[in-house]
Amino acid sequence: MNRLLLNCDIGESFGSWTMGLDAEVMPFIDCANIACGFHAGDPGIMRKTVSLALSHGVKVGAHPAYQDLVGFGRRSMAYSAQELQDILHYQIGALDGICRAQGGRVSYVKPHGAMYNDMMANPAQLRAVIQAVAAYDRALPLMLMATRDNSAAQQLGDEYGVTLWFEAFADRAYDNAGRLVSRQLPGAVHHDPETVVRQALTIARGEPLVASDGTDLLLHANTLCVHGDNAASVAAVQRIRQALDGQGAS
Amino acid sequence: MNRLLLNCDIGESFGSWTMGLDAEVMPFIDCANIACGFHAGDPGIMRKTVSLALSHGVKVGAHPAYQDLVGFGRRSMAYSAQELQDILHYQIGALDGICRAQGGRVSYVKPHGAMYNDMMANPAQLRAVIQAVAAYDRALPLMLMATRDNSAAQQLGDEYGVTLWFEAFADRAYDNAGRLVSRQLPGAVHHDPETVVRQALTIARGEPLVASDGTDLLLHANTLCVHGDNAASVAAVQRIRQALDGQGAS
Amino acid sequence: MNRLLLNCDIGESFGSWTMGLDAEVMPFIDCANIACGFHAGDPGIMRKTVSLALSHGVKVGAHPAYQDLVGFGRRSMAYSAQELQDILHYQIGALDGICRAQGGRVSYVKPHGAMYNDMMANPAQLRAVIQAVAAYDRALPLMLMATRDNSAAQQLGDEYGVTLWFEAFADRAYDNAGRLVSRQLPGAVHHDPETVVRQALTIARGEPLVASDGTDLLLHANTLCVHGDNAASVAAVQRIRQALDGQGAS
Amino acid sequence: MNRLLLNCDIGESFGSWTMGLDAEVMPFIDCANIACGFHAGDPGIMRKTVSLALSHGVKVGAHPAYQDLVGFGRRSMAYSAQELQDILHYQIGALDGICRAQGGRVSYVKPHGAMYNDMMANPAQLRAVIQAVAAYDRALPLMLMATRDNSAAQQLGDEYGVTLWFEAFADRAYDNAGRLVSRQLPGAVHHDPETVVRQALTIARGEPLVASDGTDLLLHANTLCVHGDNAASVAAVQRIRQALDGQGAS
Repeated sequence: MNRLLLNCDIGESFGSWTMGLDAEVMPFIDCANIACGFHAGDPGIMRKTVSLALSHGVKVGAHPAYQDLVGFGRRSMAYSAQELQDILHYQIGALDGICRAQGGRVSYVKPHGAMYNDMMANPAQLRAVIQAVAAYDRALPLMLMATRDNSAAQQLGDEYGVTLWFEAFADRAYDNAGRLVSRQLPGAVHHDPETVVRQALTIARGEPLVASDGTDLLLHANTLCVHGDNAASVAAVQRIRQALDGQGAS
Repeated sequence: MNRLLLNCDIGESFGSWTMGLDAEVMPFIDCANIACGFHAGDPGIMRKTVSLALSHGVKVGAHPAYQDLVGFGRRSMAYSAQELQDILHYQIGALDGICRAQGGRVSYVKPHGAMYNDMMANPAQLRAVIQAVAAYDRALPLMLMATRDNSAAQQLGDEYGVTLWFEAFADRAYDNAGRLVSRQLPGAVHHDPETVVRQALTIARGEPLVASDGTDLLLHANTLCVHGDNAASVAAVQRIRQALDGQGAS
Repeated sequence: MNRLLLNCDIGESFGSWTMGLDAEVMPFIDCANIACGFHAGDPGIMRKTVSLALSHGVKVGAHPAYQDLVGFGRRSMAYSAQELQDILHYQIGALDGICRAQGGRVSYVKPHGAMYNDMMANPAQLRAVIQAVAAYDRALPLMLMATRDNSAAQQLGDEYGVTLWFEAFADRAYDNAGRLVSRQLPGAVHHDPETVVRQALTIARGEPLVASDGTDLLLHANTLCVHGDNAASVAAVQRIRQALDGQGAS
Repeated sequence: MNRLLLNCDIGESFGSWTMGLDAEVMPFIDCANIACGFHAGDPGIMRKTVSLALSHGVKVGAHPAYQDLVGFGRRSMAYSAQELQDILHYQIGALDGICRAQGGRVSYVKPHGAMYNDMMANPAQLRAVIQAVAAYDRALPLMLMATRDNSAAQQLGDEYGVTLWFEAFADRAYDNAGRLVSRQLPGAVHHDPETVVRQALTIARGEPLVASDGTDLLLHANTLCVHGDNAASVAAVQRIRQALDGQGAS
């Protein structure tokens, strides 16, 4: 069994505004998805976040977004495929610049918010993102969402020679297609830490989850998305980390 | 005699707004100082400008600035040394990202506008800029202004192992210290093409100019700053190019 | 017959970038749709544009947009109804502030670009815009597009007590529904000045146009949208102005 | 004795980022200095903050700043007098627009951060700010810092017919000139609540403070600047409020 990487959105403070417990969650994760200035993060925040990641041996991932600070990159915007590639190169490069100044490098790419959702919903957007990563550096994996059937995405990744890292969620319910149940619906988010850790282990073992319609759902995932928003979510990450490490050791 | 490189600010359009005759001037220059999004340029403009430069075999230089689109980076802002380094890394990296996606690389750095002026006026700022370039990539030269005495700057460059490219101006009058005469004063700008070409050749030959107070002024310059703002300035660049090439051939 | 007002997007320069022949077109129009800083315009440009409008006795209209300078407000963005109202109040107020400092006032509102298109395509968006105008000042008319049947929009305007000014285009072909034929299609834009002036007069007289499918199309319009982009479009505005004035005099 | 108004910077959240305990401090203040989008605040935050202020009968003040979100308006920028007036009109108008949509109005103006400091240090800047307020609406008071001698500022205010509201600080030590002692120096900030309340009462009674050099310092102040940053500062505001109210009743 491949080790399931823990990835976390991080570096989402901006200017004088703080968001997230970056220093607290960093010790427990493998991959830091670092905001690149378009939805959050500024050059100073990026420097501090990269420094923190490097000091913990955590991989630095570019977490690019639509250019929308007020909306935190969560509002869909009608970017053309070309515009999308341009803002990806700009943001990946900017974070890579911050990394290089500290002797590091961007190691992977995970789009944020509406850019991520649009990429999962629209194959032309996904193609544009994969093309952008391939043009920047074919060796950078792209993180995207594991669903019931990853084959269409995988085919696109293969076409451009880009490694895909599929991510799953331990704290969210899935529907039959392997999509996240909308937060508007009851039961969409698991609040019980036991449930979260159990789901993390199930995914790590390559065993099926139970989808919202009761059917089995097998997710092929390389990484698990965790959160450092507050003390409770950091505690959950710590428990997941211990559970995965304990399991790996057995 | 070393060949005098022609450098030009370029890629200073933004979104739907056009500035400068980039395509017209590109064939005649050696070094394109490309705006990085903070005073001008956006990811799409940067892609097109990099593509144009690469197609002409012109070196791509990062042209970073204070974050001030409305003021075109021309208003001084009280950045700390750390903040200055952060925005340099961000912008150099962003342009490098755009370059990498096209198989190119940023080859040097030339600060823009108020960042350039503040760096020339304030040794602490110059040190911060040189440190930033050194941390990003010691192999990148920094372009700055040739004055009567480049030794203080040169010493800083040597301290960090950064190559300095001193630039001179063919269309501007100099004062006794080797600073540009203020545009507020009469005779500050040479409008006559003959005068401009003659000053370019004088600098290229390593011969002294006549400063505004009538004294000799010897500038040790590696590069000449030219302009692609309008048809007249492009024509001037073409004449300078021909004069320098003709001289080099003799 | 009511006088057909000529309205024109104006003040769409930004910082050091110039767009449009504002000073040239201002003498011929009745209503200046002035950009409010979100897609174009900055406080200095807005001041100069308002001053120009007031000096010509031209009505100042707020021309608010989605917050997208790089995309010139032409990219659709997923704003909620509340967010839309907030950015309308902010932008209308900002322009009103610039006006008040010169003894003027914003006289009407015309959304720009994607905000305009989304408002015409989506009744919930139109309702939000009308609500925003009503809350700001019920006395401000809202400019929107005349189509074959204005009744649904009119009903919404009546519900909130907001006057609607329907606008038509003299230089564009219409389809059967009274929507503009896409610029992608042949014949979408009238380039012949005679045709443009004829269409302006037809609309002013309340006579039907011929839609792209050959059927009659009667547009009830209060205002005609004209353009000051370049010398040719300014010349067209001047001809339309003369034609309308001549007709009014007869 | 005139009632000493309590003013507080507020509405300094931005997008998804929260700053300050606005709801907690609002019940205890008279004047809310509301950020206008250039250093903090966005149209949605501004709407919520205005609504909160109006519901508590608190005066809405425009709190305009240099355009510098990353630097929170705390970095000095080289604005010309004209540019300064333009961004003042834009921001005052924008907040006024948000107010008008809720049946309120901007009641006064207090510049923020570097704009405030530059205005206090540079008479030309102060003149530009006063001119801007006068041009917008002569009836709006301008809040600025009380020093040992307010006469130069008062003369400028009188020249343009603008009422000045001088503000003092209960939690800061003053030097002999009536300027705040730098935060870099020991004793610059009063952390003891008793000391803070005592200083507030001293100012309210029109009695002299003791400056850092031991001399008496009489400040003529109309308003006291308080802070809602955290629970401790809100508690301090509540105590000041009670002390002032109790005193007023006696």
